[in-house]
Amino acid sequence: MNSIITNTREKEPLVHCITNYVTVNDCANILLACGGSPIMADDAAEAAQITELCAALVINIGTLNSRTVESMLRAGKRANELGHTVVLDPVGAGASELRTETAKRLIDEIRFDVIRGNMSEIKTIAGLSASSNGVDASAADAVNESGIDGAVSFIKKLSAQTGAVIAVTGAADIIADSERAYIIRNGSPKMSKVTGTGCMLSAVMAAFVAANPRDKLTAAAYAAAAMGLAGERAEVYSRGTASYRVGIIDEISNMTDEILEEGIKLEKR
Amino acid sequence: MNSIITNTREKEPLVHCITNYVTVNDCANILLACGGSPIMADDAAEAAQITELCAALVINIGTLNSRTVESMLRAGKRANELGHTVVLDPVGAGASELRTETAKRLIDEIRFDVIRGNMSEIKTIAGLSASSNGVDASAADAVNESGIDGAVSFIKKLSAQTGAVIAVTGAADIIADSERAYIIRNGSPKMSKVTGTGCMLSAVMAAFVAANPRDKLTAAAYAAAAMGLAGERAEVYSRGTASYRVGIIDEISNMTDEILEEGIKLEKR
Amino acid sequence: MNSIITNTREKEPLVHCITNYVTVNDCANILLACGGSPIMADDAAEAAQITELCAALVINIGTLNSRTVESMLRAGKRANELGHTVVLDPVGAGASELRTETAKRLIDEIRFDVIRGNMSEIKTIAGLSASSNGVDASAADAVNESGIDGAVSFIKKLSAQTGAVIAVTGAADIIADSERAYIIRNGSPKMSKVTGTGCMLSAVMAAFVAANPRDKLTAAAYAAAAMGLAGERAEVYSRGTASYRVGIIDEISNMTDEILEEGIKLEKR
Repeated sequence: MNSIITNTREKEPLVHCITNYVTVNDCANILLACGGSPIMADDAAEAAQITELCAALVINIGTLNSRTVESMLRAGKRANELGHTVVLDPVGAGASELRTETAKRLIDEIRFDVIRGNMSEIKTIAGLSASSNGVDASAADAVNESGIDGAVSFIKKLSAQTGAVIAVTGAADIIADSERAYIIRNGSPKMSKVTGTGCMLSAVMAAFVAANPRDKLTAAAYAAAAMGLAGERAEVYSRGTASYRVGIIDEISNMTDEILEEGIKLEKR
Repeated sequence: MNSIITNTREKEPLVHCITNYVTVNDCANILLACGGSPIMADDAAEAAQITELCAALVINIGTLNSRTVESMLRAGKRANELGHTVVLDPVGAGASELRTETAKRLIDEIRFDVIRGNMSEIKTIAGLSASSNGVDASAADAVNESGIDGAVSFIKKLSAQTGAVIAVTGAADIIADSERAYIIRNGSPKMSKVTGTGCMLSAVMAAFVAANPRDKLTAAAYAAAAMGLAGERAEVYSRGTASYRVGIIDEISNMTDEILEEGIKLEKR
Repeated sequence: MNSIITNTREKEPLVHCITNYVTVNDCANILLACGGSPIMADDAAEAAQITELCAALVINIGTLNSRTVESMLRAGKRANELGHTVVLDPVGAGASELRTETAKRLIDEIRFDVIRGNMSEIKTIAGLSASSNGVDASAADAVNESGIDGAVSFIKKLSAQTGAVIAVTGAADIIADSERAYIIRNGSPKMSKVTGTGCMLSAVMAAFVAANPRDKLTAAAYAAAAMGLAGERAEVYSRGTASYRVGIIDEISNMTDEILEEGIKLEKR
């Protein structure tokens, strides 16, 4: 059994988040729940300095604006210089030119360890035609079982191009680098009725990878499995979508390597 | 029995929210809970383009600033061109010149399908003298049973002037167009101890009206009834105000046309 | 028995918060839960005017930016002119030059009734060398039992310099003015796994002090005790960190002077 969660709880990586104001509270709380520690700071005057204190940086473009894009670039470059874990969540890439161009600029100027999005966002990143459905994956881009093989090879190629672990989350999650891929089949359809499960996962990935830098791919895949398993476990007792959200974070706060190992549904490709 | 909720869950209207950062997460989660889908985007560079993807737009001035007011105007005008449902929540109108003037400017330049606020805010909109009590209705403006007749005719007149369905929420809710009015008597006084119940209702109204465009008045009134009924049902089991908030969203996520029809307390005037 | 909570519920002080977007919803909800009423407004064009409507102002620099710092200054000066309760939460002071300089500028230009932070932040305020750990107190700055005497005299001195009640929260909380100090030993280590417990406490302090202006020190100390006791009581039944957060606010909403008097762990020094 690996010790990804134990390592995270022991190292308590401080994670700088430049993130959207919709799900920022959930991201902070799930970082604490998974063993990390959050700091949110998005002013250009302090972005680089705050990042220096941290082990990881998450850049999430969910409610980007001209002021925060500048901060993202400054923080990302400084984090690269310091060898910190850097995660990109290109929320809504493809939904507007601003988002698509910002995502491309971030990828051009910053070296990411992990890029996590739904298939529509990741296809936009790859410059392929993707049909946008706002911040959710469009139906045409949903990954189903028959399309997994094609998706895996596409994702491996994108990883080779960017140097980042690519995590595409959906009904099944595919997390791959240029050579290896994991398919994660944890989770529940009900998770799509809670805002921010993707943003939260990006934050957890940052903490797990920062605390387990030797195998980024496995750390990112286990983060996806942990979120999915939390969603499975919370579904048992939640009364509706809001208590379900509370339950997901509760389950992450109680997650151990043992619980995860027992519940993980992981396939290597 | 009408099928307002069923229609919303089937059509899953994408709702663009330019809203305050206090209750934005609750608005996103209740949109998902009621069958809609949220996208929050407030930068002027993308506001119009994001709106194009959507079926409805909610403009909420709860934490307005000069940057977001420009985005509201751009998104509102584009939504009007496309015939989208547009809802205004003039939070705190009357509490500062900035809010009052912004509300008036929005009403001058954008055509709204629904304007929802408490009586103080709606009176400010109407240019009447209203005593402001921050973001809550002042005691003098609380609607009580004896004042309902006067309120109804005031609201019908304002609807005739603006072309919008006017929804005044309080101990009793009055939702009216120029000819018809509904009085909704669902809800609980405890709802005033949870922040954002008004903002959430505005978001639900946008989803319900977008999915039921033929009778905006009834869709808006049923949204008010659904929120109130959710508040009644959640009160039974909640431990305090925070679990009550969770319960309200849970109840919306479980709401059906059958449950609503059975619990609605609606009177026509 | 004193009547701090009863007074707050009777007077319902309106509290203007210029605060971070991470925990702003929790601050609004806990203000309602403790008997106050929140209004969030951070645009410079309205900051002073909104403050005029209120009884208290909380300035929290958790996600400060150049736009909101100007609003803090305008609101703070107006609140001082009107004799309102003004509370400073210098989140992350010491973590970046921007935060440290902003905190100093605020203290230079505004007269605070209460300054609440962890020991790292308060030491930064005092101009002493403090090791920063982001927004949490660094291990070197944690207050333990053996160091309480030294901390008390340091805090009394800082109170004499600033004219503010100083509240340092941690494993034990120390709340002091220039002459008297209270040590509060309520709370639970688990509270550090919920984001925003400090921000929420600052908001509750503002409401308690505004409603009990004759003895600011005791009002602030009782706010710290109420939060800690809420944390103790919620721990009994919460399933994980997210339901714990819900429970803390629930317990505040149910708190009475009787419950607090029975559970308070207060020592005078």
